[in-house]
Amino acid sequence: MRTSELPRAVTYRLSLYVRQLNALARDGVTTVSSNELGQALGLTPAQVRKDLASVGQLGFPGVGYRVALLAAELRRALGTDRDWKIALVGVGHLGSALIRHKGFREQGFVIAATFDKDPALHGRTVEGLTIRPVEEIGAVVGREGIRLAMIAVPAEAAQDVADRLVAAGVKGILNFAAVGLDVRDDVQTSTVDLSMHLEQLTYHVTSLKRGGDHGP
Amino acid sequence: MRTSELPRAVTYRLSLYVRQLNALARDGVTTVSSNELGQALGLTPAQVRKDLASVGQLGFPGVGYRVALLAAELRRALGTDRDWKIALVGVGHLGSALIRHKGFREQGFVIAATFDKDPALHGRTVEGLTIRPVEEIGAVVGREGIRLAMIAVPAEAAQDVADRLVAAGVKGILNFAAVGLDVRDDVQTSTVDLSMHLEQLTYHVTSLKRGGDHGP
Repeated sequence: MRTSELPRAVTYRLSLYVRQLNALARDGVTTVSSNELGQALGLTPAQVRKDLASVGQLGFPGVGYRVALLAAELRRALGTDRDWKIALVGVGHLGSALIRHKGFREQGFVIAATFDKDPALHGRTVEGLTIRPVEEIGAVVGREGIRLAMIAVPAEAAQDVADRLVAAGVKGILNFAAVGLDVRDDVQTSTVDLSMHLEQLTYHVTSLKRGGDHGP
Repeated sequence: MRTSELPRAVTYRLSLYVRQLNALARDGVTTVSSNELGQALGLTPAQVRKDLASVGQLGFPGVGYRVALLAAELRRALGTDRDWKIALVGVGHLGSALIRHKGFREQGFVIAATFDKDPALHGRTVEGLTIRPVEEIGAVVGREGIRLAMIAVPAEAAQDVADRLVAAGVKGILNFAAVGLDVRDDVQTSTVDLSMHLEQLTYHVTSLKRGGDHGP
């Protein structure tokens, strides 16, 4: 049912390459080798070459990669060579912070519609966006042709919201609710679980203590 | 200088196992096999057994794993069998949302001190926490014995904040600023880059379009 896609680990690294290439371009660097890219990101040159080859024939023999050209090709592959409209559901503390997050717009992500279950919020505006009832997800998302959404509602409400978004045509969901979502297999979800991030750090601090060697 | 630690990919899966075991315990399940754990999480039984063996001799021949015991051992390995105090720096929109995020306390993460550069915020309280000047990071973090921190300041201020936290004894930093942090190698950082999460989704939606097959 789906076209073949690169594994997430690969597309994640493609995002890292784009960031590194942007930094190089800002510094006026015009060409870069797989060695240099790998060194900056903690990857082997072979891994870099394999990842970039999965997108196309992008290197030049004896030159390496042209920074601007490679960045443009990777953005095209990732779909970030254009702006994306996003529907945000759940305008609580986290949702409000997401609406005001400046980084999204800089990267071409535009929150174009917001929804909440709470009638007290309906008709209010945040950063110029009117908060609408979740019952209007279908109409608004369909009309605006929105394909991406962020869910910032309590865990128990997340699946219902996901169902409405998917029925309206959304194909990618960034999920901040601490619960897995059950969606059709042409829809991709990505969950931001902040406690899991913190658990990586507690493991590290606990290991340091066990080792008993804290360095200088 | 450091004790040997498991790779992040492994400790990430340990967090996943704990979540799955908690779900099983809630359903009254007392034993589980590597097959069942793997199936629930999309991993091979061999991967599950290898991961769990890296923590200790946790299985029982002919029985599999005892749910409560295994969860307890994994929490001990991850360091989440205790509460952790966290310093939060940057009380803007995102920082305020993090302070109010209920999921942290449920998982044993307690934001115990908050700091901001803006003098207009100093002395104000959020959820009972007094916002202090960043100049007080050293004194407060040291006094409270805090080892974990979250950075929610603009990118250009993040490295200075990280330097203050590390000098005060912080060993793990969850970074929401869109910039890499340069820290000593006994300090671990984990960056939450929401735009990179979104780029995984734009890749997916773009691939769907390229394939031209959107399913039913």
